Amino acid sequence: MTSWIRFRQPQGHIGFGVLDNASIAEYDGDMFGDAKPNGKHWRLNEVELLSPCMPTKVVALWNNFHALSQKLGKAAPSHPLFLIKPPMSVIGPGAPIRRPKGYSGKIAYEGELGIVIGKRCTNVSPEVADDYIFGYTCINDVTAVDLLNEDPNFAQWCRSKGFDTFSCIGPVIEREFDWRKASVVTRLDDVERQNYPLSDMIFTPAEQVSMISHDMTLMPGDVIACGTSIGVGSIKDGSTVVVSIEGIGALPNQLAAARPVEAAAQ
Amino acid sequence: MTSWIRFRQPQGHIGFGVLDNASIAEYDGDMFGDAKPNGKHWRLNEVELLSPCMPTKVVALWNNFHALSQKLGKAAPSHPLFLIKPPMSVIGPGAPIRRPKGYSGKIAYEGELGIVIGKRCTNVSPEVADDYIFGYTCINDVTAVDLLNEDPNFAQWCRSKGFDTFSCIGPVIEREFDWRKASVVTRLDDVERQNYPLSDMIFTPAEQVSMISHDMTLMPGDVIACGTSIGVGSIKDGSTVVVSIEGIGALPNQLAAARPVEAAAQ
Repeated sequence: MTSWIRFRQPQGHIGFGVLDNASIAEYDGDMFGDAKPNGKHWRLNEVELLSPCMPTKVVALWNNFHALSQKLGKAAPSHPLFLIKPPMSVIGPGAPIRRPKGYSGKIAYEGELGIVIGKRCTNVSPEVADDYIFGYTCINDVTAVDLLNEDPNFAQWCRSKGFDTFSCIGPVIEREFDWRKASVVTRLDDVERQNYPLSDMIFTPAEQVSMISHDMTLMPGDVIACGTSIGVGSIKDGSTVVVSIEGIGALPNQLAAARPVEAAAQ
Repeated sequence: MTSWIRFRQPQGHIGFGVLDNASIAEYDGDMFGDAKPNGKHWRLNEVELLSPCMPTKVVALWNNFHALSQKLGKAAPSHPLFLIKPPMSVIGPGAPIRRPKGYSGKIAYEGELGIVIGKRCTNVSPEVADDYIFGYTCINDVTAVDLLNEDPNFAQWCRSKGFDTFSCIGPVIEREFDWRKASVVTRLDDVERQNYPLSDMIFTPAEQVSMISHDMTLMPGDVIACGTSIGVGSIKDGSTVVVSIEGIGALPNQLAAARPVEAAAQ
């Protein structure tokens, strides 16, 4: 088990390191390259956890689980179907999901497995794709549902899923993780809403990395959100979603209670 | 007229500066912040031009011109319709557009105006949005057309437009530019294919920046591709597309001739 984590300590210093029970051994250097322990240790409860990586893009899959595909009556795709979520959409465990200003519609959670890329890759074969995977994390892929089909001519995937705070990632990047034996469990205010096996994926992580690396160069720290399965639902203001995957950890994020209009303005 | 430019000199040094006839006055610092001339000058013909900025995302609009909207029989949207193109899709003037490995279908050009963001902005009003625009550039928004509707259930906008080299940007960022009086002209191998007035835009640049800044935080150097109008067509391998806008400049990019499979592999 090697779990990488990023954090901010109370004085504002941002660091990264390896989780060891309830403490973090801080490293210097590049998480995806030459990283060395610097001898400092932090207690988990004295730091603020951040998203464990800072992707240049989040590639988010749609229709990648047989169970959901069958429920929706959609054929399994022949290539991963994806949209791109921008870097500013990323938040870490415990950070609030913010309702977009002026949007009063439904906001949905989607618990997902996240693949974190470790090495720049272009056009890699499925046989070697695992070498480019640094590790795995949990994702809550948040959606402003009512915007998706607001225009009859253009499905607004990037808009409805691209808002600031709509890509929750964490708590760690787990390097030793066997997705074949794990399930994604999503709890909304402590009630289980999703519990699906990752073995039901249409495209395996190695297939995703290979096929998407033929669509664009993937960079260290980039994240592929593997898509969700049945049990997606909406989050009320003030409710908390926890996405957990055994062997990785639990990712809690609360949809912030609505703020007065003046406070929300920037 | 202040035209910002990025370049690589023959020894590999990457710099930026202001274009002055056929020479560049190099600056140090941050193009979008505190930049000062460092006294060095480069002749245009001794450097390689790069994309004038390095966006964290390219927000590319669909259906933003009345003429094309009417031709397609699609109603004008009530909010900018967009997809996100990743940073690795960006190339500068003169750089080759590369055909995706394994894709033998049509590749289309779209000549467009590009808005370059100068200051981080979230939820800005249309009245102040111009203050967040650093300047304007030319865009060739390239598309692997045959992939767009390959899956009947999901329009693959991000995939078909997101390939490496599919966002051509440049040659400069022009700070003093009046889009109301300018036209976008696209030439394919010296034959004019597009020539449309920017005054026909559905959402003005200030409206785009305001509305999109309500969808996501825009960062310095981010680019909004304002969408195209009539005259889109496909590019043959080896053909050159030049997008030009009077007052900004001309952006030439060739679709590289197909390479042998072994050479294309990485």
